[in-house]
Amino acid sequence: LAAETIITNVTPVADMYVIAVNDSAIATAAATLSIPDNAILVHTAASVSYEVLQPYAAQVGVLYPLQSLRSQMPYIPKIPFLVDAPDNIVGEQIFAFATSLSGQVAYADTKTRTQLHVGAVVVSNFVNHLYHLAYEYCEKANLPWDMLQPLIHETADRLQLLPPSQLQTGPAIRKDFATIEKHHALLAAYPQLQALYQQISSSIIHTFR
Amino acid sequence: LAAETIITNVTPVADMYVIAVNDSAIATAAATLSIPDNAILVHTAASVSYEVLQPYAAQVGVLYPLQSLRSQMPYIPKIPFLVDAPDNIVGEQIFAFATSLSGQVAYADTKTRTQLHVGAVVVSNFVNHLYHLAYEYCEKANLPWDMLQPLIHETADRLQLLPPSQLQTGPAIRKDFATIEKHHALLAAYPQLQALYQQISSSIIHTFR
Repeated sequence: LAAETIITNVTPVADMYVIAVNDSAIATAAATLSIPDNAILVHTAASVSYEVLQPYAAQVGVLYPLQSLRSQMPYIPKIPFLVDAPDNIVGEQIFAFATSLSGQVAYADTKTRTQLHVGAVVVSNFVNHLYHLAYEYCEKANLPWDMLQPLIHETADRLQLLPPSQLQTGPAIRKDFATIEKHHALLAAYPQLQALYQQISSSIIHTFR
Repeated sequence: LAAETIITNVTPVADMYVIAVNDSAIATAAATLSIPDNAILVHTAASVSYEVLQPYAAQVGVLYPLQSLRSQMPYIPKIPFLVDAPDNIVGEQIFAFATSLSGQVAYADTKTRTQLHVGAVVVSNFVNHLYHLAYEYCEKANLPWDMLQPLIHETADRLQLLPPSQLQTGPAIRKDFATIEKHHALLAAYPQLQALYQQISSSIIHTFR
């Protein structure tokens, strides 16, 4: 696979052209390219229709990677792909290409991709924010963050065995209000974490009420 | 190691006795045992002092596993241990025992253990609750939960390489209010998840303001 970040260097000999830019820049990037009629033009956005590409190529579609990717990482994680296209044959070609890269490929229209993106935000962006607040708290309170890493991994790993409702532990599900109060007081110097401690504990109590 | 759940079956021949029960039941359990003077009695609670054991044994301490453990799980995860004791020699014996089980052992007094327990609640109980809300949302909206699993694992795995502040992604850190609004509207039928979407997004925006 050839990758090109300078758009004027893109040559008109590929079978597929992949635009991987911010949602709002997709049309601008597509307008800059000259896509041959026998090639497929796709973007990688969750919440944008393939329609944005239709003025610029005869065959268009979507190839959305449901994964958090950063060029700095030394390894490539498992990447599920979601595929969409107005034409079934084009869709099958994108699907076949995705299958050559990943064991998890499915078709998903713009609405389904947008809905799944919400799930991705919750289990990745929000979870990482909780990690960040805990990390910052450990740094400031001089606590060994490294000792929390096995717990972090176990919390993710055991999802392969049971649904999360059956894995919930902690003071909130036990309705151990004495511990919740003690923790709340300990977090007085960490207002962001204190607020989320209260909100998420309430949400857990509400779930198992 | 012998394990015994029927307290009357505990024999007075061990070097160490471990009480692993709810915080409020530790003293009751200790009172039921006859601990030889040359044995060590420990409990496994984060936020309880060894003092609760002192009426019942000559040598006491704490052996707190910083891990979420369930007897149903088919494997034993990595378990960091936190050790405490009023007597240094007893502390060293508990530490040596913990080292025979785990590569991560440290001393921690009741205050430090309680503070670390708050961190554990955040990175495990709260994270699992986010998984639960996302799982329930996927079930109700007929979305493939399995396609989120690689993202869940990647979010935990990459913490080994960088601190979480450098790994934050998503609409909130980009201040992509259009996407946040779109997601908020999509969650109208999921009020618990919608509330946490708003609260955690605000917390991320506040962090990177």
